[in-house]
This record gives sequence, C-alpha cells and structure tokens, in this order.
Amino acid sequence: MRAPDMPAAGADVGGGSVKYGVLAEGGRVVFRGSFPTSPTPEDTFEELRRRLREASASAGVEPRRLGVALPGPLPADRAALGELPNLPAWSGWPVRERLSALFGLPVAVENDANAAAFAEAHLGAGRGCRTVLLLTLGTGVGGGIVHEGRLFLGAEGAAAEIGHLTVQDDGPFCPCGKRGCLEALVGSRALGASYAARAGLGEPPPLAEVISLARRGDETALAVFRQAGAWLGVAVAAAVNLLNPDCVLIGGGVAAVGGPLLEAVRASAIPRVMPALRNFRLAGAALGNEAGFIGAALLAAGEEG
Amino acid sequence: MRAPDMPAAGADVGGGSVKYGVLAEGGRVVFRGSFPTSPTPEDTFEELRRRLREASASAGVEPRRLGVALPGPLPADRAALGELPNLPAWSGWPVRERLSALFGLPVAVENDANAAAFAEAHLGAGRGCRTVLLLTLGTGVGGGIVHEGRLFLGAEGAAAEIGHLTVQDDGPFCPCGKRGCLEALVGSRALGASYAARAGLGEPPPLAEVISLARRGDETALAVFRQAGAWLGVAVAAAVNLLNPDCVLIGGGVAAVGGPLLEAVRASAIPRVMPALRNFRLAGAALGNEAGFIGAALLAAGEEG
Repeated sequence: MRAPDMPAAGADVGGGSVKYGVLAEGGRVVFRGSFPTSPTPEDTFEELRRRLREASASAGVEPRRLGVALPGPLPADRAALGELPNLPAWSGWPVRERLSALFGLPVAVENDANAAAFAEAHLGAGRGCRTVLLLTLGTGVGGGIVHEGRLFLGAEGAAAEIGHLTVQDDGPFCPCGKRGCLEALVGSRALGASYAARAGLGEPPPLAEVISLARRGDETALAVFRQAGAWLGVAVAAAVNLLNPDCVLIGGGVAAVGGPLLEAVRASAIPRVMPALRNFRLAGAALGNEAGFIGAALLAAGEEG
Repeated sequence: MRAPDMPAAGADVGGGSVKYGVLAEGGRVVFRGSFPTSPTPEDTFEELRRRLREASASAGVEPRRLGVALPGPLPADRAALGELPNLPAWSGWPVRERLSALFGLPVAVENDANAAAFAEAHLGAGRGCRTVLLLTLGTGVGGGIVHEGRLFLGAEGAAAEIGHLTVQDDGPFCPCGKRGCLEALVGSRALGASYAARAGLGEPPPLAEVISLARRGDETALAVFRQAGAWLGVAVAAAVNLLNPDCVLIGGGVAAVGGPLLEAVRASAIPRVMPALRNFRLAGAALGNEAGFIGAALLAAGEEG
C-alpha cells in the first residue's frame, strides 16, 4: 500500500453530483460529502471550494493537494477537459490551470475509472496485488489498470477502455460510435431495458429497483444480471489474457447486485482465459462510490509540488 | 531509443534452431549466426558457448552479459524453464543459474515474443513509440508489450498472450487447452490446412510456399491470409482498446506475406476499436528473425551486474 504523505482533497465529478472528501496523511478519509453538479465548471468548483474550506475547518486537516476525477476521455496531458457527453458545457475547459488558480494547490486530474482503480489498488480490494484491473459498471462501463502501484495509461492516456471492447459483432450501437461494445450491452440503460423486455413492462424501472429485486431472488431480475455477467466475462477474459492481472475487481453502482453477477462473470471468463493465467482473484470493489474521490486525492498526493 | 552501454550476447532458442549474435556497445549487431537446437539444454548451450567464443574473437568484442530468449511460458522469476511444448527435455531446467555458471556472465532470460517486442521497441519498427504491441506469427502466435521502454509483464510475467484470446467461441481446440484461440485459427499449421482445403490438396504445402504464392498474387493463397488478417484484427482491436498503443507491429515468419495481411488486419480491427483510440500505427516488424536474440541481448545489457 502507498499511503499519502500529506493531507489531500479529492472530488469525483459526475453528471449528476460531485462526491468529495479529505484524506489525512496516511490515507484515512476524515471528511466526506456530496452536492449536485452545476451546469458550469466555474459554479461547480466554486461550490467545492466553499465546502472544502468548511471541511478543513471541521476536520482540522488542511489539504495540500487536490485531485479531481472526471467522466469521459481526457487528453494525454490532463490539462483541459475533452468532450464530456454528460457535461456538454464543460468540454475543453482548462481544468488544471483554473483549479490551481482557484484553490492555490497543485492539482491532479484523472479519468474517474482510473482514479477508482488507483484507490482500489492502494486502499481497497486490490491491496497487495501487483496488477489490478477494475471495471466500473454504471451508465457507462469504465476500466482502470494499476500495475506495480502506477496507472497504466497507454500512449495517449486512454488505456483500459474495456467498456468499448467489441463483444458482439453487429451488436447494438454505442454512444462511442461503434457497435457491439460491452457498454452498449451491460450499461445501466441496457440492463433496465432488458428487465423491461423480460418482465413485459412498457417502461424500464430505475435500475436500483432491478438490483433490489435481484438481491431478493427475483428470477427475472437475476436473469438480467446473469446475461450481463456473461458479456462481462468475455471482456474480462480478453483483458486477463493480455494483462495477466492477479486481481480483477468489479465496481460501480451495478456491482451492488453482488454474488450472482460475479459468479456469472467467472463462469463466462474462465473458459476463455488461457489455463496458465486462470489464477486471478475476481472480487467486488471495496470502496463503493468513494473510490473516485479517494483515488483522485491519492494521485494528487503523489504529484510533484 | 535505449542503446546498451556494454557489449552483450543474445540467443533465441527455438524448437529447431538457435539464432544468436553479439551486440556492440550502442546496439550494432557485430556478429550473427545459427545452429540446430540439441535435444538437451546442456549440449545446446555448450555449442553456444563455443560459438560465442569464436564470435568474440572474430568481432573483437567481449560480451559482458548474455540474454536468452525461450519459447513458451516462463515462471515469473525467470529462474527455471516452464513446460516447453517444443522442447520437452528442457522443462524445469534451472536456466539462469546454469547459464551464469557456464558463461561466467550475468544472464537475462525472457519469453521469445517479449524479447522480440523489446528489440522492436528500442531498435526496430517501434522506435520512438510510447506503447508498443508486437504480435509474432509462426507455429505459435506470441505477443509482447513494451510501455515507456519497459516490458509490461503483468502479475506473473505472462502478459501479452494475445495468441490465446478467444476470437471464435466454439472454435477449434488449441494446444493450450481451450477453444477458439487466435493461435488455433492463424498459427502456421492452421494456415497451411486452410490453403490445402481451399486448393483441394490432400496435404498442406510448407507455409513458405503459400506465402510465396500469395506474394505472387495467387488468389487462393491471398484468401488464406485475408481470413487470417480478419481474425488477427479482432484480437488487435481488443488489445488496442485495453492498451492504447501508438504502435502495433506484426512480426514472425508469417508476416513475410506483407501488405495484404496488414490491410486485412486493419480492415478488421478499426471498426472494433473505440474511435478515440484509432490513431495507432500498424506496421510490419523490422528486425526479422533477429529480433529475439537482439531483444534478449538488450534486456541482458540492462540487468544489474
């Protein structure tokens, strides 16, 4: 485990809400909170600044770094935002420079799934593992790879796009522009639609309801997640053959369904993994919806001042 | 580029022959040769020792490190050989200790595809790239990943098994024990059989003949490699979505067919790659069948003495 050697704040900006917190030296979360995301980044981060000032006062810890996790792709240098489908007014905003000025702190910016993977590898379910792959299941399907304590980002900082592995040729269209992506098949909208179709409903119920039904043993709801696990297993197997991880973690809101999903992932993945590489641990993520801000804070604490 | 700062010898041990050479400080190959692999590792490396002594004398360069590339999986610590399907009598041999004693030099041991990827990234077609993926096409289909100048090996040193990605569910059995592996579909035996079936021959011709026919424009032979490229593209796309390489190289004997294969790989891969990640270079490898010994020598030159 890598413990931050200074207090750091983290924020995980989603389309609906911002989750944030303060980590003390050593990594303990000494403050946590959330608030609705504003349409503009200026308003959102002004609110974050106000709240972090209160948090510092109440927790008696002064953050010396700020990490921000953001949805969607980011340019390799993490200086400005890319196109954020869920936050259109934010596209192109020079995030690092503006936040450094606003907060007066060194700032780290990272993709939300990467930040979550970093947190799980250092302080969560991937502790002690050498090569960690995290999948985050929600509206989108994200991924992050941590190898020997560092994010694996590829040539342009966009590695681990496991949600966009093609798992069904000629499958449904994905917002990314291609077909048959894992995300198009197991993103929360697809799962809701799958439940509605199986249950003969005109409108998909909120996914939380389908998860809750599955946890109570409802066969229709369970079938949705077993099918999702089968698709996820195809992508997990490809990733295991390429990355040889010792730890594969499933996180994000959809993962709350638990055991039945993990079992279906395993049953689908194992026959597709080279026998010599089957010795990996498949488990749920441990840090829940705090992984993003924790990882962002940890990444920030590791930045050069 | 990383140039070795000391002379180093390299050897690439295959089931049929050993290719070896001496690299001067700076990376130039000052001697190269090959000889048939003996049934036992002792006889093989005794012959290598005799030949390297002659090579040093004739080239006037004294190697200070030895790197050895070997086929098949190796344990994470690279101390002993694993099961080598093409060299059964070699299985379990404590390669690093024995070679250090025999040669009186620090020894590096690596999987042959990884060694080739390391050579291509530093001195071949991947020079200047940040994240290089190499596929080696022969009897087996191997892979290697080099990121920021270092091999990406995963948790147990077995990453980059792209030949064992499942690209056809319920596809043909692979020697690895599972079905539908890329290797089972595009390994040289499968390609020979595919040509024989298309040409109505009872026996597959040597693959070199099929490659030569394809290079002269024979439609039956070309169809074999176009189909192979289509399968390869499925695996390349998965790897690009996960690794975000700037450079994907195709090497090994089968790659000698050249353009038609690369075009088929590209046509199959691109629609399966997330649009934001399509900006990678796909090219043939540059170092031919010397990549293995060059990479082994480079890896050895980078070892601590």
